[in-house]
Amino acid sequence: MTQVALNAGERIDQLYSKNIQIIQSSQVFAFSLDAVLLGAFAQVAKTAKSQIVDLCAGNGAVGLFVSERTHGHITAVELQPRLADMAQRSVTLNDLDQQVTVLNEDLLNVTTQLAKDSIDTVLCNPPYFKNQPSSVKNPNPHLAIARHELTANLDQIMAVTSDLLKMNGKAYFVHRPERLDDLFATMAAHRLAPKRLRFVHPKADREANMVLIEMIKDGKANGVRVVPPVIVYQADGTYGKEVHQLLYGN
Amino acid sequence: MTQVALNAGERIDQLYSKNIQIIQSSQVFAFSLDAVLLGAFAQVAKTAKSQIVDLCAGNGAVGLFVSERTHGHITAVELQPRLADMAQRSVTLNDLDQQVTVLNEDLLNVTTQLAKDSIDTVLCNPPYFKNQPSSVKNPNPHLAIARHELTANLDQIMAVTSDLLKMNGKAYFVHRPERLDDLFATMAAHRLAPKRLRFVHPKADREANMVLIEMIKDGKANGVRVVPPVIVYQADGTYGKEVHQLLYGN
Repeated sequence: MTQVALNAGERIDQLYSKNIQIIQSSQVFAFSLDAVLLGAFAQVAKTAKSQIVDLCAGNGAVGLFVSERTHGHITAVELQPRLADMAQRSVTLNDLDQQVTVLNEDLLNVTTQLAKDSIDTVLCNPPYFKNQPSSVKNPNPHLAIARHELTANLDQIMAVTSDLLKMNGKAYFVHRPERLDDLFATMAAHRLAPKRLRFVHPKADREANMVLIEMIKDGKANGVRVVPPVIVYQADGTYGKEVHQLLYGN
Repeated sequence: MTQVALNAGERIDQLYSKNIQIIQSSQVFAFSLDAVLLGAFAQVAKTAKSQIVDLCAGNGAVGLFVSERTHGHITAVELQPRLADMAQRSVTLNDLDQQVTVLNEDLLNVTTQLAKDSIDTVLCNPPYFKNQPSSVKNPNPHLAIARHELTANLDQIMAVTSDLLKMNGKAYFVHRPERLDDLFATMAAHRLAPKRLRFVHPKADREANMVLIEMIKDGKANGVRVVPPVIVYQADGTYGKEVHQLLYGN
């Protein structure tokens, strides 16, 4: 590991199942189970030719998680300079500067830097909540932008995803089940066919609070598969086997 | 129970969890777990003023299943005369002629007999498969119409559902997960907001092979709930507790 400087309020978290350390800060952004599950759900090609983009990358966690499963190049796109800087230092910390590029750029402008129809895989853990006048936002602007659609909404993110992807390229999103109607509508509007859904339930008897979606650009309709759900916690409050393995490696 | 005549090839099946007997025929139509799960998933108002319509009613099973949970009136709409006749005899067999009306009518014409915006609840177990030139259809026309969209497609069925429902009326559909994209697109096209989804997995480690959907006419967007799935069979091949209870009452 290369040494990097930490700013005030930052810590380094280790994902024990992977050989990856990530700079976190509860003041501006910290990855959570969403990012871990998205990284595990995404299927990335091993080949060095593979081009992978992580949109709404935050501190870069999702891209770093998949880096060990591919020789392809990963571009992490993050609007907020403070977060992009954290992501860049995490890349350096893990000696991944050759494989991972951090772009501090508004995703709405990203096709000025990445060619359209050139990407094999898009990963995205977008802001979950609509920007409605009535919605209570976090007074911390870093956290507000990560949670609410203040700088890009789902339709815009899907449009960029579709623009970036090659024909038959795949995108992987994590989102909230209550937005399923918006998710299906925006996929349909941007040539993205849903292929595989996986719901995440906090416990076996609780409603899903996350959904993982695989989609294919110009894929065929009516081929949706709903795979068995993730159950995060067992009845006794300990992690279920799959999640424990993702977090701790055993 | 009132005695009714059975035609050749017909039998009477009892759903042990309910005090309901249903005339079945594997030659023309027999309800299966789909209908049982749809009946259990549907929330019907108890009041006698409640107006319930079962579209694509087949032998009337879904309407008969919910009849014991409501004093409302149920109209079972079935295109095929042979099946509508079976449904009518099952209604008589269960002494439900006062509560259940069987309409032998094309659902595409049903608003000539049932007023638009007058129905509280629509139930529907539609044909699951698109009518594509390449698709292999059952040579038995009764079964082909029940399985393939030969006489009405999903968009048309959603249009009729929306026409029939009062504002804020609810519809309950059972369908196949691979059609989720069509389901979301046709709901959106016909003022039906998805409210609650429940997936049905044959076993805990198998992909879902059915989805139950609750929708609300003119309901608000982005309020989808995904409740815990139905797991039909346990690992040992016996019915799971919930399905066993639905089929056998204990």
